[in-house]
Amino acid sequence: MPRYKLTLEYDGGPFVGWQRQANGLSVQEALEDAIFAFCGERPNAFAAGRTDAGVHALGQVVHVDLLREAEPDTVRNAVNYHLKPHPVAVLRVEIVGEDFHARFSAKWRAYRYRILARRAPLTIDRRHVWLVTVPLDDAAMREGAAHLVGHHDFTSFRSSICQAASPMKTLDLLEIERRGEAIEIRAKARSFLHHQVRNMVGTLKLVGEGKWTPADVARALAARDRSAAGPTAPPDGLYLTEVGY
Amino acid sequence: MPRYKLTLEYDGGPFVGWQRQANGLSVQEALEDAIFAFCGERPNAFAAGRTDAGVHALGQVVHVDLLREAEPDTVRNAVNYHLKPHPVAVLRVEIVGEDFHARFSAKWRAYRYRILARRAPLTIDRRHVWLVTVPLDDAAMREGAAHLVGHHDFTSFRSSICQAASPMKTLDLLEIERRGEAIEIRAKARSFLHHQVRNMVGTLKLVGEGKWTPADVARALAARDRSAAGPTAPPDGLYLTEVGY
Repeated sequence: MPRYKLTLEYDGGPFVGWQRQANGLSVQEALEDAIFAFCGERPNAFAAGRTDAGVHALGQVVHVDLLREAEPDTVRNAVNYHLKPHPVAVLRVEIVGEDFHARFSAKWRAYRYRILARRAPLTIDRRHVWLVTVPLDDAAMREGAAHLVGHHDFTSFRSSICQAASPMKTLDLLEIERRGEAIEIRAKARSFLHHQVRNMVGTLKLVGEGKWTPADVARALAARDRSAAGPTAPPDGLYLTEVGY
Repeated sequence: MPRYKLTLEYDGGPFVGWQRQANGLSVQEALEDAIFAFCGERPNAFAAGRTDAGVHALGQVVHVDLLREAEPDTVRNAVNYHLKPHPVAVLRVEIVGEDFHARFSAKWRAYRYRILARRAPLTIDRRHVWLVTVPLDDAAMREGAAHLVGHHDFTSFRSSICQAASPMKTLDLLEIERRGEAIEIRAKARSFLHHQVRNMVGTLKLVGEGKWTPADVARALAARDRSAAGPTAPPDGLYLTEVGY
């Protein structure tokens, strides 16, 4: 029974998130339905990151076990055919050993968060970036972000429904790059708490607009209290970009 | 009667093009309706580039004459408010002299054409790039493009309904840049013939996939015959990026 590793790209906009739910179409359900249409099997698809509603992926990794043995390219093309018209695409398929687990074997996850700081409404990037209508000081945001890198108790940046056993995480990277009105925040860690990236971005936005100083980020982190940090940034700007094994 | 210069961004997807037409909503109509909602006037909006159906703009320039005198930022915010829910945004407004004409004063136009060369279908970039499902040799495309730069008779790259008086144009720049599976073609000229960029891109794609040699582009140009060049690339990947005055 071969195990297939699938690398997925998707537009999170029309979905209730990665995970199958009763209240609407998930990416998982769309993928499992396409696999069923291809080979008549209904495997459980395991993903590296359970992206929330509206969150996008450029490199989500999923594994499935199928009785059917097929060439990786055949699986990719057939599943993509049956995924239409959903905005989900299988970029690559590899056959992996049965010790490979998309979620538990992952050594790191990388996310990107896109902000557009301008007064004018969104057109082409609608639902794909966070529109912030005030100017942002990216240097101050960078200074604030530096306080979050490293091994910390991230309780202040953790959603109240987070199921992780511990709030201790090591944030390997939190970079901020500006190109004109566009600000991109890149985060990398072995794993993240629920809403951690969006809560860090929502906090750094307060620094960028001058409501908070960079040092306030350190104080929010030290408080170990969700109400001490900033609001959750919208899902629109968040992309799961890569998973390392 | 002040003349306002508006810089626009839009997603061309839902429109019949820039120009007002009986068969559907144009960007011009959406803009003129929003201006009417703002000030009760129905000016004629003149654009630097009459983009076709499905073609996008990051920096289209338009001018309108209004009786109403208002601060540029007030005009921008009010027109943007009334443009909702259309994917059109006024990025900037400036008050200009009555000798300024968006179309006739333009010294150059710059376009960008985005290709994604991969087997997997589009998700996030759907309707915003041209998906080419075969690998493309960007070095060969660059060599082919070099034959088009300069002052030439572009009859081979001109749509049959082009209204320009002459097929002679000076193409100042035709650059090709690859980043992974993404290929971006940038073109700059004082002005372009109808479909010129899309016809050049459709031809360079033949070179990229190896069906044509770079030298075939020079032969197509020399033929001065539309049927000698490649097909018209789809509008999805084309962006009017900037207009210079």
